[in-house]
Order: sequence, then C-alpha cells, then structure tokens
Amino acid sequence: MRYGHFDDAAKEYVIETPATPLPWINYLGNEDFFSLISNTGGGYSFYKDAKLRRITRYRYNNVPADNGSRCYYLSLMDSDSADAKPIETWSPTFLPCKTPLDSYKCCQGIGYTVFEASKRGIESKLTAFVPLHTNAEINRLDVTNTTDEPAVIDVTGSVEWCLWNAVDDSSNFQRNLSTGEVEIERETDATLLYHKTEFKERRNHYAFYGVNAPVVGFDTSRDEFLGQFNGWDTPQVIAEGKAHDSVAHGWFPIAANRVRLELQPGETASLVFMLGYIEVAKDQKWEDPNNPAKVGIINKKPAHELFRRFATVEQVEAALKELNSYWSELLTTYSVDSGDEKLDRMVNIWHQYQCMVTFNMSRSASYYESGMGRGMGFRDSNQDLLGFVHLIPERARERIIDIASTQMEDGSAWHQYQPLTKKGNADIGGGFNDDPLWLVAGVYAYLAETGDVSILTEPVPFNNVEGSEQPLLEHLRRSVNFTITHKGPHGIPLIGRADWNDCLNLNCFSDTPGESFQTVENNDTGVAESVFIGGMFVLYGSQYADILEHYGRLAGMSDAEIASEAANVRAEIGQVSKAVKTAGWDGEWFVRAYDAYSRKVGTHEDTEGQIYIEPQGMCVMAGIGLDDGKAQQALKSVKERLTCDWGTAILAPAYSTYRIELGEISSYPRGYKENGGIFCHNNPWISIANAIAGNDDEAFAVYQRNCPAYVEDKSDVRKVEPYVLF
Amino acid sequence: MRYGHFDDAAKEYVIETPATPLPWINYLGNEDFFSLISNTGGGYSFYKDAKLRRITRYRYNNVPADNGSRCYYLSLMDSDSADAKPIETWSPTFLPCKTPLDSYKCCQGIGYTVFEASKRGIESKLTAFVPLHTNAEINRLDVTNTTDEPAVIDVTGSVEWCLWNAVDDSSNFQRNLSTGEVEIERETDATLLYHKTEFKERRNHYAFYGVNAPVVGFDTSRDEFLGQFNGWDTPQVIAEGKAHDSVAHGWFPIAANRVRLELQPGETASLVFMLGYIEVAKDQKWEDPNNPAKVGIINKKPAHELFRRFATVEQVEAALKELNSYWSELLTTYSVDSGDEKLDRMVNIWHQYQCMVTFNMSRSASYYESGMGRGMGFRDSNQDLLGFVHLIPERARERIIDIASTQMEDGSAWHQYQPLTKKGNADIGGGFNDDPLWLVAGVYAYLAETGDVSILTEPVPFNNVEGSEQPLLEHLRRSVNFTITHKGPHGIPLIGRADWNDCLNLNCFSDTPGESFQTVENNDTGVAESVFIGGMFVLYGSQYADILEHYGRLAGMSDAEIASEAANVRAEIGQVSKAVKTAGWDGEWFVRAYDAYSRKVGTHEDTEGQIYIEPQGMCVMAGIGLDDGKAQQALKSVKERLTCDWGTAILAPAYSTYRIELGEISSYPRGYKENGGIFCHNNPWISIANAIAGNDDEAFAVYQRNCPAYVEDKSDVRKVEPYVLF
Repeated sequence: MRYGHFDDAAKEYVIETPATPLPWINYLGNEDFFSLISNTGGGYSFYKDAKLRRITRYRYNNVPADNGSRCYYLSLMDSDSADAKPIETWSPTFLPCKTPLDSYKCCQGIGYTVFEASKRGIESKLTAFVPLHTNAEINRLDVTNTTDEPAVIDVTGSVEWCLWNAVDDSSNFQRNLSTGEVEIERETDATLLYHKTEFKERRNHYAFYGVNAPVVGFDTSRDEFLGQFNGWDTPQVIAEGKAHDSVAHGWFPIAANRVRLELQPGETASLVFMLGYIEVAKDQKWEDPNNPAKVGIINKKPAHELFRRFATVEQVEAALKELNSYWSELLTTYSVDSGDEKLDRMVNIWHQYQCMVTFNMSRSASYYESGMGRGMGFRDSNQDLLGFVHLIPERARERIIDIASTQMEDGSAWHQYQPLTKKGNADIGGGFNDDPLWLVAGVYAYLAETGDVSILTEPVPFNNVEGSEQPLLEHLRRSVNFTITHKGPHGIPLIGRADWNDCLNLNCFSDTPGESFQTVENNDTGVAESVFIGGMFVLYGSQYADILEHYGRLAGMSDAEIASEAANVRAEIGQVSKAVKTAGWDGEWFVRAYDAYSRKVGTHEDTEGQIYIEPQGMCVMAGIGLDDGKAQQALKSVKERLTCDWGTAILAPAYSTYRIELGEISSYPRGYKENGGIFCHNNPWISIANAIAGNDDEAFAVYQRNCPAYVEDKSDVRKVEPYVLF
Repeated sequence: MRYGHFDDAAKEYVIETPATPLPWINYLGNEDFFSLISNTGGGYSFYKDAKLRRITRYRYNNVPADNGSRCYYLSLMDSDSADAKPIETWSPTFLPCKTPLDSYKCCQGIGYTVFEASKRGIESKLTAFVPLHTNAEINRLDVTNTTDEPAVIDVTGSVEWCLWNAVDDSSNFQRNLSTGEVEIERETDATLLYHKTEFKERRNHYAFYGVNAPVVGFDTSRDEFLGQFNGWDTPQVIAEGKAHDSVAHGWFPIAANRVRLELQPGETASLVFMLGYIEVAKDQKWEDPNNPAKVGIINKKPAHELFRRFATVEQVEAALKELNSYWSELLTTYSVDSGDEKLDRMVNIWHQYQCMVTFNMSRSASYYESGMGRGMGFRDSNQDLLGFVHLIPERARERIIDIASTQMEDGSAWHQYQPLTKKGNADIGGGFNDDPLWLVAGVYAYLAETGDVSILTEPVPFNNVEGSEQPLLEHLRRSVNFTITHKGPHGIPLIGRADWNDCLNLNCFSDTPGESFQTVENNDTGVAESVFIGGMFVLYGSQYADILEHYGRLAGMSDAEIASEAANVRAEIGQVSKAVKTAGWDGEWFVRAYDAYSRKVGTHEDTEGQIYIEPQGMCVMAGIGLDDGKAQQALKSVKERLTCDWGTAILAPAYSTYRIELGEISSYPRGYKENGGIFCHNNPWISIANAIAGNDDEAFAVYQRNCPAYVEDKSDVRKVEPYVLF
C-alpha cells in the first residue's frame, strides 16, 4: 500500500491521505525552537529542551491519537451575523475534526509542512515552518472561495499550553491546576493570547499565540472551549458558532483565536498565526513594575517585535524563501548523480535532512521518544557526527568538544550528558565500554571532512572539571588506552555494562521488576567480553594510529614518540584482531560476546541467540577476516540467517525465556519471524561491510531494504510489526 | 446547583446526572487491590502501589476527560444473526458512549458503586466492588428487557492494560510498544483475557479480565478495537457490530469481551465481569515449563480459582453482602445521635469512610494525585491516624511502628517514606521541623483510643537500621527534644525547610525555575522560626509529659526520673508559650513566623500576607491565649479576615509578587477573593479552636461551611475555583 510519493523537484514527500498507518511526522526548526508536526497537524513545540521547556502540550499514546496540538477549524457559517451558526466545520489538516475532506494533501518538506485541503468549494492551504533565527512557528493559512456564492468562513486556530516542564505537567496536578495564568491582547489588527504561568514566580519566559487579524472572539480556558465530555473534534464553542471570550485562571489554559472571513467568489484571504516564545532579562519582566495598577502585567515588547516580523504575507513569504535558500545551499555541499533516481533522492536530500534533524534533536524527542527521558548520548552523538559533519562543520566541532569534555580522566565516559548543563548524567552513569572508542570515530570523521587539525590541540577538560584541560589528542589516547587496559581472558575487550547494544547486559543479573538493566551491575566477574568492541578497537584504534602518525607532531610529539606509540597501538590491534579471529569466531560467523562465566554468546552451540548482527558488520568493517574468508562467510551467514524483507534482524533464533546472565536482550517477547526484533540501525553497517568485502550487489540490496525511496509500497509495515520500530 | 442527594438508609450518595462539574469518584478496596471509580465509570485499578503496580491505564488531564477505563457498551442489535448490526449503542455508565440515556443514577456507596440506566426500554444495573480479601474488581451487570418485544443486546466490556509501572507506561514508548503480551482463554462458559507483559522477564504477576459467559467475540489489540482516529466513544468494532478476535503483539494491549444477550419481554440476564490480579511463586510461573510446546504459557490455575469464587450471581451477591456487613460493623464502633440529621450522617458514615480511604490510599492516588509521585508522609500519616485509629486499632498500631521506624536518631524525620520498602525517601529528605511532633500526636491518640500502653515499650529502630531499636517512648522523647534543641532567637522553634505548610520555605531562596522549594536549602541563617510549631510544641509536648507521667514507669523509669523530665518539658512549654504570646503575637492575631532575616511573616506591618490561618488554629488548640483574650481575638480576626462561604483562606491579602525569602507560598497567582487559596484542611482546626474557646456556634458554622452534607447546593464550586481544591 502506498500513501504518497516523492516530489524530487520540490524536495517534498507528498502524503495523499490522512489515514497513514501512523502519524508521519516532520521536524521544524534549526536552532533553539523546535516543532514536531504530523501529516494531520499533530505534534508539539519546545525551546531547546523537550522536557524542561515544553511550550505546547502533547499526549503520547492517547485515545484518540495525535489530537489537540495545532487545531484549526474552518466553519462555513450560515450568515455574517453575530449569531451565525455553522453549517459544517472541518480541519484543514483533517484532524482534529475528522470531517471527510473533498481533497487532502500534506507535503512534508525540508523544514516546512504544507497542508492543502478542500471542502464544499472552500480551498485551504496551511503552511507551517519555523523561520531561521526565530523562536516561533508560523502557520500561514490561505482560504479561497471557489464557489459561485459569497461565503462566510469562521477560522479558529488553537493550541494547548504545556506548563513548561513536561514531566510535572503530566503528573503534578495538585499544583498545576492552580497555577495557570494568561493575558489577552485584542487589538483591531491582531490578537495575541499570552501564556505566563509561573512568570510571576521564577520564570523569565512566556509564550503567545497570535493572529494578524481582528478576532470575533477568543478562548483561553479549555473547559470553556471544549465544554463537558467533548474532544478536540467537537469543541462546544465550534458547535455553537461563537467563542466564549474566556479568561483562564488555573485549570487548563489554552489559546484559541476566532477570525471571520467573508469571501466573494474566487476571493482568497490569508491569515498568519504565530506561536512564539519569549525570554526576557530578569529586570525586564514587567510592563511597569513601579505602577501598582500594572502588577503582574508582563513586558510584551519583545513579543510585539517578534510578531511584527511576520505580520504580513509578504514577510512570511520572504522568511520561507530564506529558509528554502538555506537548505538548498546546505544540500549542495554533497551530492551524487548515480543514474539511480532513488539513490540520488535519498543521498542528495533525505539522508542529509535526517542527519540534520539528528543533530538538532539528538533523538531526544520524536513520536516514540517522549522528550521526557534521555539526554545526549556519548556514543550516539559521536555516531551521529558522521552524518552531519560535512553539512555543519563548525557545529560538529563544538559538539565534539562538548562530548569530549564529559570524558573521565581514565578514558571512560559518562553514557549520557544533559544538553542544558553539558554535564554527565549521574542517573545512568558510565561503564558502557564501547563509548570511548566512538570519540575516535567522531574526531576522525571530522578531520577527514574538514582537515581542521587544530581541533587536536584544543584544550578540553575531563568531566568538565576546570583545570583538567588536555589537548583533544590526549583524550583520544585515553580512549584507546582504556580498551587496551580493559581486556578479558580471551584478549577481547571487556564489555562493561553493555556495548553498542544497550540490552546485552552481561554483568547485570537482575531478577527485580523495574530494575534498570543499564545501571545495575551486580555480578561483574571481570571476564565478560565483547567481540563487537574488539572489532571497534581494530577499526578505530587504527584510525587513532593514523591520526598520530599524521598529526602527532602538531601536539608536540617527536617522531620517535609517534613511531613508538603508533607501533604499540598497532601491535595491540594485531593481538585483538587475532583474538577475534580465534576465540571470537564461531565457525560460520563472529561470536557476539563471552558472558560473566566466560561462556560464548552468539554461537551455534546454543539453541537460541545463535547469531547476532553487530559483530558481523563491525568486524568486517574493521577488515577482520578479509584475508582468510571469514568476512565473506560471516556476511553469508547474515544473509541466510538474519535477513528478511524489512531488514536485518538483531539475532536469531529469538530467546523464548529470560536469561538472567544476558539481561534485557532476552527479555523481549518473540516477534516477527520468531527473531528478537529488527534493528534497522545495523543495516548501514552490513551494507558497508558488504561493500568492503566486494559484494556490491548485496551492499546495495541491504541498503534498499530499509530505504524509504525503495520501500514505499511497504510503508504500512510499521503498523503490523512493532518490532520493526527501531 | 444540586447533582444528587444523600440516602442515609442505604448509606449512599445518589448522583442524578452524569454531568457533575467534575468526575465524582469513589474508592473501592480495603487491603491490597484498589480501584478509583467515577460517576461515569472512569478510574483505574492498582495493586498496593499506584505507581509501580498499576493494572489498568488512566490518562490524567485528558481530552476527552475520564474515558477509557471500564468501558461498557450495550448495543441493541437488529437481529440475532452473525452479521447483526447495531441499531444504537450506549454505556450503562453514560461514558464513554455519551449516548443520552432515558434515565441515569449513580449510587456511590461504602466500598461499592452502582449505576442504573435505561435506554429504549432496556434497563441496566452495573454494580462494581472489590470483595474482601480479594485482588479483583467485580462488575456485575444486570440487563432487563422492559419492552414488549424480544431484544438482542450485545454487551461489550473492556479495559486497557497499563504496563505495570505507571511512569514508564506513560513515557518509555521505545520499549513499551514492543513488549505487550496477552493470552486468550475462550471457553464455553467463560472467557478470560490475560495480560502478561514482562511476565516472560522478571515479573511474577499478571492480570486478567473475564466474563462468566461464552463470548461472541473478543479483542486484545486496541488498534483493532478502536480503529483509526476513533475515541472510546465510538470504537470501530462497536460500530461494525462485531469483535475482531484480535491478538495483541506489542503496541497497546487491551481486553474486550463481547457477549450476546437474547432477552424476552420482561427477562433479565446477569453477567459477571472480573478484573483480577495474580501473583505466583517464581517456580510456579509456567503451565508446563518442561514442555517446549508450552513455552511462555502462563500458569492460570490461580486465576481460575479466583474467577470461580465469583462466577455466579449468587456468589457475587454473597460477597457484596459480606462487604456490607464488614462496613456496618466498622461503623458501629463510633456513632452519634445529635438530633441534627446532617451532623449524624457525616459523623456516623462519611467522615469515617473518608478516614478509612485515607488510611488505605494515604493520599497517594486520587483524581488530583496521579499516583506517580509521593510516598507516605511522616506528618500526614500521623495526622491521618487520628481519624481511623478507633476503626482499625491493630492496623493503626502497625502504621505507628512503620512511621517511627523511619525516624532519625536525633529525633528528626524523613519527610516521606515508601510504602513498599518502608524506607525514608531520599529524594525529599528531612528538615521539616514539625514532623517529629506529629509522632507524639499519633501515639497519644492511639493510647487514648485503645489504652494499649504496650506500644510504648515496643522496640523500634531508627532510620530502619537493625540494632538501633529503642522503646517507642524513647522515640517520643527524641521528638520533643528535637524541638527543645532547635529554637530560634525569639525562643520559638526553628522552621527548617517548612512546617505543616510545605509552601512556606523560609530557608530556601530559589530563583531557578523547576527547582524544588522543598529540597533546596540555600540560605539557612539558623534564625527562621515557626509560631505554628510553637503552638504544636505546647500542645504535643504537653501530651508527651502526660504520657510520661502516666506510663513512664512501664518503661522502667523511676518516679523521680519521671517527675524531673516532665517538669523540664513543662518548663520548656511554659517558655515557648510565653514566647508565642510575646514575639508571636501581632496585636490581633498570632504571627506566622520569623524569616531568615528575623523579620515577621504574617503581620499587619506588611502590605500582603498579613494574617495566616495555621498559627491561629494551632495556638488556640494548644490553649495559648485562653487566659488573656488573645485566643478570642485571634479567632475573631480569622472570622473577619479569612472566612468566606467556602471555608477559611490560608492567608490574606494574597501576595501579588514572588518573595524569594518566603518561597512557594508567594508564588501562586491571586485567586478567589484575592487571597492565596482556601485550605479546607484548616477548617477542622478552626472549628476545634472555637469549641475550645467556648464559641460553639462559630465552631459549628465553620464545620458546616465545608461539610458536604451542608453545602450540597454549592457543589459546583469546585468547577469555578481551582483554589478551593486542597
């Protein structure tokens, strides 16, 4: 089943029905203000941090799903009188109204989303984007009367406010229901509805939702807007045809602006709605702090300035054009002309766009990540770098310094750090022994792309401790040394709490529900080893040696020092490589690991979990087994044992019972094809490994299996198999 | 506006419309299994702990509100064929269907709830309760055809499963969507749908939702049941008239049973639906662990046993009767015959019921407490004791020991402790200086009610450290000594982080949004004092001296020791009392506190926050000022300055700006009557204080102002003023 198509000229994916298997979303914003937006208008906005500074409310896993975000209602009215009643109401984004539309189209573009709809001869076009350098989402709405009669259309746009902290907002009702505060500014040419909860207290930020037109009414109380028992599909004020002009005190503040359009046949009217976020200096919080009559009235000047920058259609058009130019230029940095339309499309547009989103969001907020959990991953952020370093090298450099600054003195790493404080996340801790090597991977990619060797001598602290600064090259040295000094009985690196697969927990023996598999370490016998990290060490250790040999002199090393250290690292690589080829080889594929009792994990000797995907890709990428047929054999086993139409399974056969010595990996139910889930993350590695091994056709086949451009007709697979999510 | 009435004979509150201002709820369960149930069928169930062991899913602050809990659908079908279509569908609890009913009634009883409804001549009666000593909620549904024609009624009952941990369930979607597992057991006389998510892994508990009848179909996948875009009001399978017999794998598991009733005119059919919770021993988890064909099949024996205990209408009737008898007997422990119908009603039935609910829930789960936050409060649990000690003295004794076991060696206390571990909650910590004295209040009430002096010599540890046990009397001594040794410059007790009012934070100077007012202590100058704790010390210190004098000998003290210590305590009381009467007296009322700069809080010298409620009630209850007119004057000021139709305000005038030296109390927006919110908690104190001062009429008037029996016609006040919530 196909739900849309790529429009390469416009660089858009055009969704042709609101009834996609799940909401299909886009990410708006490039710097500090971000929005998620689905093909039916769902999603939410936040400033910098989806947990601590959420601007609009979103309900994950809700029934009905994906409602109540940006809600737009077009009501065809029966007259232009003050008491006019709606003949019919629909949403230009289909939801929340659910009224069947005569036509519908959602174009998910590069940094913007456009909805085109028609109903009863009234055409609408809603364009949503976050302008460059702007803390606001613009929703431009064009409404055209294509009938032969004049039409009265009431347009209501609404958002629901989140009380800033997304966790508190969804749990601390004893407090929340008493704190909500709003202000209303209704002018003849515009109406701005302000959300200022806790501004009285310690916050110095507020939000607003405005429209560049006079309103016939507004609402800021959700109860008044919706009425009792109603959902967002049928608000009471929409059914009544009239806003209540409600002013929220506590309970549930929202912002809804109602504008009346009177359109002659053929006439188009355009409205600009804006969701804006404002921060003010502490001494600039209030309109007039010395006037008792103005106590509590917020300083709206910065909101006015922001609003006026996009108050006309011309301004909005210019801003969108500027955004388009920004992206066009970014995407010229790298492009291919392969002769394969689909490959070009993905490489030239969508992969790069995806990588930028990853840079911006770092996987912290999506329709599966609630934005309330994790910070930035040490491993993830380094991996992600490989995708965006060519697009935004300056910001990649900054990110590398941020990451390396959280590294510990012994070369180990915090597993996550908080984007706001940039400090290690003590809740998760460290001990994921692959982490340090990813720093080498990230820096190597940065050097290869930019040639900016100055980064190697940049002073970078350990664990953010002032005074502990050492050149970045020293951080890489400690990363590599950490692996060298943490090897197990077979000469293979110790796994610690887990490696790339956070669910393989060989030192955590957990029998308590709810206990974190990632933080409990209660049976560390000091012997559990990871063949995957072995492959990593061979690959990234070698990159480190290359860096040394090329640039060690910049860091003040003598030729002899360089030669000696590089030789030592290469000798270590040789040993690990040999260990992987012997103890790490199961006969037809690479073993996954050795557990806390030094028993093989991922072996044909087992009844389940015989073969794992990760070491096959990583070891071949490291070149292990290219000389003696092991690489080819491992990839053949992957194809035969782990491959299905939707990608590469993480392991096979799936574990039917929980194994306390393996941890979370064995805890998932059996899923698709009786395997333990499909990890699309692995497909690029398998693709690259095949290319390295000379299997170009298979490399391309693996790529195609997961690439949206090639699997458009299978796009509803996500509906039927949760295990394909990752 | 009135929404119902008290039925004293039945001990019920009868709600006559589903459109109450907010859901009006009841609490089912007495031991380990609890349910919240609203007058439209909303709510959820949990086992022991609303956060860690939640059985059914509930969405707080949702749109539409209060949907998706126990959903019952009655569909009048157009035939008895397999392809019959629904003529109309409604809910016997009104929600989620929202179909207007011909008649509706919800009786909130003592431990049970009954819904009576009729539509199209079909009458229904749904009775919900948790039987004694049972981990299950019973929903008995009687359906009667009062028309002259035979009728085919399809009954669908459904619940949505929570994946056990309520916090994870609402945030960790990356994992949750892949873990859901169910089993289906469809027999000729009954159908049980099992929820076994994570049972494969470390859990040894599962849940089931069954009906004592053959089903025409079932669903366990929410997506299949609801269909795309639909809410609980219009599930797809209900609209289609046919279940999909879906089996959930991951995503969103639910349980829906569909039973067909064919009713002749005048005929009644009865169904018993059961939501059950089962724990099994680790070695009893599986049906047949040695049979590979049975891998993953759970041991259902205990579920069958539980289900069979309530599989007939007669069994259900007997269980309900047993529950009624249990309650009737409990309520005979204490009763009044005052001649005032409303007073008798509240004292003899509802106050006692409320106190039992408080014992069971300890305020951890309600429609305002999400069940995801706080544990048991040290202060709260002692206060609550005063209400239920006469009903369940054995369990009160146990609770006292639990609380005292968390006390620190220096007499201070953890502010909260976790009900599962019974250990202090390190996230909140201690330093709430009123806490220790509440232990004296609880123990004194226990002794006064039961005469069980053996509790005083019971060995109780400090901070749960084995080996630290001391007689309970020693704990009381340390409580009192903590206050004696923690006084400020005026001889008034130091407040610490806060006293009874958690929002008065005199040592926390917070200017960072999101920072906890209760745990930050960044400006403790060691001088901030609480007049409220002064009153407490006079009252409960005196109770301690009484205990000593009466029972000190039991604890091995000599008469001389007793006399000496009691005299010392009474001397301290005299000093604190004097300090309260001088430095703690503002001229017309008691001062609230002294801040970190030793400035008065709650004084006419201020422009706002001039008078606070707490010290007025507590000081008069302690007898301070009864001799010199201060008590009468303070109560007069309360009446004039803090009293309104709905109770007693916490302070007046409200703070218009945030004061960093006062903390959260000044952070709330101005609310009703420009005061800082109405704390109904305080009304009992003011009532008692007036009685002590001889103002019987005012004592009763204060009581009446907040007592449901007297304010039935004002019951929608909760809708219009969030500040009245507390």
